[in-house]
Amino acid sequence: MSATSLIFSPALMISLLAAPSAPKAGASSSASPQAAQLQMAERLVGPALTEGHAWARLTELTDTIGPRLSGSESAEAAVQWALRSFKADGVKAWTEPVKVPHWIRGEEHGELLASERFRGKSLQIMALGGSAPTPPEGITAEVVEVSSLEELAALGDRVKGRVVLFSHDMKVPEDYGKFAGLRGRGPSAAAKAGAVGVLVRSLATASLSTPHTGATGFAEGIKPIPSASVTVEDALLLHRLLASGGPVRVRLVLGCKELPEADSFNVVAEVKGREKPEEIVLIGAHLDSWDVGSGAHDDGAGVVMVMEAARLIARQKPAPRRTVRVVLFMNEENGLRGAKAYADAHAAELPRHVAALEMDSGGGRPLGVQLRAGEGGSELVRPWLAPLTALGAATLLSSEAGGADLSPLVPAQVPMFSVRTDASRYFDYHHTHADTLDKVEPEALAQSTAAVAWMTYAMAEMPSLLVRPAAPSKAPSLVAPPSQVHPTAPAAPVVGAPKTPGP
Amino acid sequence: MSATSLIFSPALMISLLAAPSAPKAGASSSASPQAAQLQMAERLVGPALTEGHAWARLTELTDTIGPRLSGSESAEAAVQWALRSFKADGVKAWTEPVKVPHWIRGEEHGELLASERFRGKSLQIMALGGSAPTPPEGITAEVVEVSSLEELAALGDRVKGRVVLFSHDMKVPEDYGKFAGLRGRGPSAAAKAGAVGVLVRSLATASLSTPHTGATGFAEGIKPIPSASVTVEDALLLHRLLASGGPVRVRLVLGCKELPEADSFNVVAEVKGREKPEEIVLIGAHLDSWDVGSGAHDDGAGVVMVMEAARLIARQKPAPRRTVRVVLFMNEENGLRGAKAYADAHAAELPRHVAALEMDSGGGRPLGVQLRAGEGGSELVRPWLAPLTALGAATLLSSEAGGADLSPLVPAQVPMFSVRTDASRYFDYHHTHADTLDKVEPEALAQSTAAVAWMTYAMAEMPSLLVRPAAPSKAPSLVAPPSQVHPTAPAAPVVGAPKTPGP
Repeated sequence: MSATSLIFSPALMISLLAAPSAPKAGASSSASPQAAQLQMAERLVGPALTEGHAWARLTELTDTIGPRLSGSESAEAAVQWALRSFKADGVKAWTEPVKVPHWIRGEEHGELLASERFRGKSLQIMALGGSAPTPPEGITAEVVEVSSLEELAALGDRVKGRVVLFSHDMKVPEDYGKFAGLRGRGPSAAAKAGAVGVLVRSLATASLSTPHTGATGFAEGIKPIPSASVTVEDALLLHRLLASGGPVRVRLVLGCKELPEADSFNVVAEVKGREKPEEIVLIGAHLDSWDVGSGAHDDGAGVVMVMEAARLIARQKPAPRRTVRVVLFMNEENGLRGAKAYADAHAAELPRHVAALEMDSGGGRPLGVQLRAGEGGSELVRPWLAPLTALGAATLLSSEAGGADLSPLVPAQVPMFSVRTDASRYFDYHHTHADTLDKVEPEALAQSTAAVAWMTYAMAEMPSLLVRPAAPSKAPSLVAPPSQVHPTAPAAPVVGAPKTPGP
Repeated sequence: MSATSLIFSPALMISLLAAPSAPKAGASSSASPQAAQLQMAERLVGPALTEGHAWARLTELTDTIGPRLSGSESAEAAVQWALRSFKADGVKAWTEPVKVPHWIRGEEHGELLASERFRGKSLQIMALGGSAPTPPEGITAEVVEVSSLEELAALGDRVKGRVVLFSHDMKVPEDYGKFAGLRGRGPSAAAKAGAVGVLVRSLATASLSTPHTGATGFAEGIKPIPSASVTVEDALLLHRLLASGGPVRVRLVLGCKELPEADSFNVVAEVKGREKPEEIVLIGAHLDSWDVGSGAHDDGAGVVMVMEAARLIARQKPAPRRTVRVVLFMNEENGLRGAKAYADAHAAELPRHVAALEMDSGGGRPLGVQLRAGEGGSELVRPWLAPLTALGAATLLSSEAGGADLSPLVPAQVPMFSVRTDASRYFDYHHTHADTLDKVEPEALAQSTAAVAWMTYAMAEMPSLLVRPAAPSKAPSLVAPPSQVHPTAPAAPVVGAPKTPGP
């Protein structure tokens, strides 16, 4: 679909633009605070919904660059694309260096070997990022199935020389957090126990024979072993064959490779604040993707939302009180190096990061606003929610804001906010060849972009600051990329939005 | 799921077994016709719903044999499996020879080549059955897109040396018939016009990067060219890139091969009629499948339905009036050779084929009964529908019964009947790696099996015969396998089922 064919609900636009207290066109910014707020909301939400700019940019990113795994030439092309795009938007941007892993996929195929009980067949597999390769002829071994790391540990010696199949029963997005550890930490545990390979049932809420890749990591001193995801269909087949007794043997061929680390970049851009330019509202997303699909939902959608928020805010006069800083992180998917590099490079500045947002749950429609802040945060933010009413997003949710790339900011007690998007189908596509532009609804993307633009402005403009949240008792674990747990718990409103805008 | 874990709705069973006029257990077959009919319905529908036999058999077929393309060793294994299974069921069975094509898939991959406008990426493709191979290094050519054979013809010389992309907009199952010709006849037309290869957008109602294979055919004198399906996602990408101007080039590698024709078999089985054994009610399905997935819906489900109908009818005393003959056709998918061989071998007998059914639209729940007969068919059948009421299938539908493997019986004016199944998701899986056991609902399979068993009994038992339908004005076209058009038009009831069973 082209950008010009976007059709937005007229009812939505009318209800948005004809809010009872909306100022007349041309009302000056010296009007009452409520009127000024509404006027600004119009100038951010209106274009986000009508211009189709985020959608056009997502089309460009996914169609002309496509997949952009860290270390690849495509990732570098994405960096250059982002710089060009910010320039075209009139937003000052620069790069900041990040050393990234450079893992590449090669040939990959799997095979269920024939036995007396069944005929052989191909298995649909996809190497996990960080997997070791097999020898060119592959590995052949008997499969042993477990559904938890505890069950693996209990098997003891029986894992030696086997391919471990990690099974689970993921059904809904909320299950992702429950089972992602099987992929993140399972291969390392299996390698430690003497396994020669790993298959992980794809972390998926739907499957049409669709393997889902993702990162795995091997603990210090553990030699990586070949590790791949397998489709839900084939995992269920292996499960049934194992359950019916007798050995099940597979052959796996993985041609993946870990190349020397590569030079890459975060892309950072800024709209300077008019009154407190040293106070920073960070809005981020990750520029890298997996090497399959084109990372349309993960995280092209987040990238274009925060870029568009900056573009729309940059063209407003006066600028908001504080500085809005966009960070397009590199290497969220398989290393979180960009997030760490940013936190390191800007350590001295983190106390002046007054709010941070990361969009990384796909391009669904907005469901509400999330916070992570000290006492009084809700009261401070609630008066700014009214312009999101017609978008169905003027609700403060009980779930906390956060994000993988923001995790290194947690020890610095940076307050966080987020626009929660509808991720009910996100894990149908996540980390697959199917994460493509056609899966993103232009209307939903525009609505979430509008909500991000407005909430970013609100954070940069509100007279008071969010109280910084308490420091965590321990640093957040980065063993399994925290990105793997998306904020997809059911949306539970804490407080309804007020009917009229506050001060 | 194991067969023993099947759980059927208690409400369904109660409503079925406690029908107001159901005879007491042990009521003799000399009771009133209605009572005898209800008693027999109990003895067919009851076990079909409670014993899980069809499901267990489908599990066996798909898990232990798996894909079974004509000419393969697996297809031969399926023949032996069917013979063993009929024997275990106490149903006399034999094989009848069929010469079949023996096409095999090889390596296959596609690539969108990089240009100044976009970076390259892999394309998810799957060779069509009947495709020619490429040279080992593949073919590289510019893509030209069309959405109809007319549009192709209009391009004239501009097709020479190109890869033709056949695009379409399939959304619902009913679209299949509309667009299947692009796959069946498109490659031949493209080859005739000088194209060097073909990509066909997968015929699918959903896609998670899922290519759908299927048969294509080349007209007499046309040299086959490499022809593959491409995922909906990649077809849309190619479409967008072409629409935005400038050349789009792809590389295709297909290692498929046409081997010499192979010896294979239809499997035929019979339950002899008690009164008119020479009159035959044929119930069929096809034993072969594509070489991807395990043909669970297409057509494992149909196979186990008709086998189970025969098993249940075979254990009834007295046997029905007429002979019930099961035919498991070989090579429906890429040649229809089994159907032709059957019609040829039994030509003399066809006038005594008094009704024929083919189940080949997947294992969904039953929606109603279809007929193809001369005048008075509905009136004859309607009184026999009552036992299907609680299954929601006691409705005569306006759509006609038929089926690919029955098409050679059309000129002989064989009356046809069918149980229409819910195929609303059938084309999500059809001809893909995702056509696997997990996509079949055991409850739905059992319900459709029950309906098939009962309607088969009814056809073999009813006192009168269906009037034979008029001969078609011309023989049905077999160029594009007629199987490709499944009876998936919305279910429109013609006449509601009577409230009480008829005579």
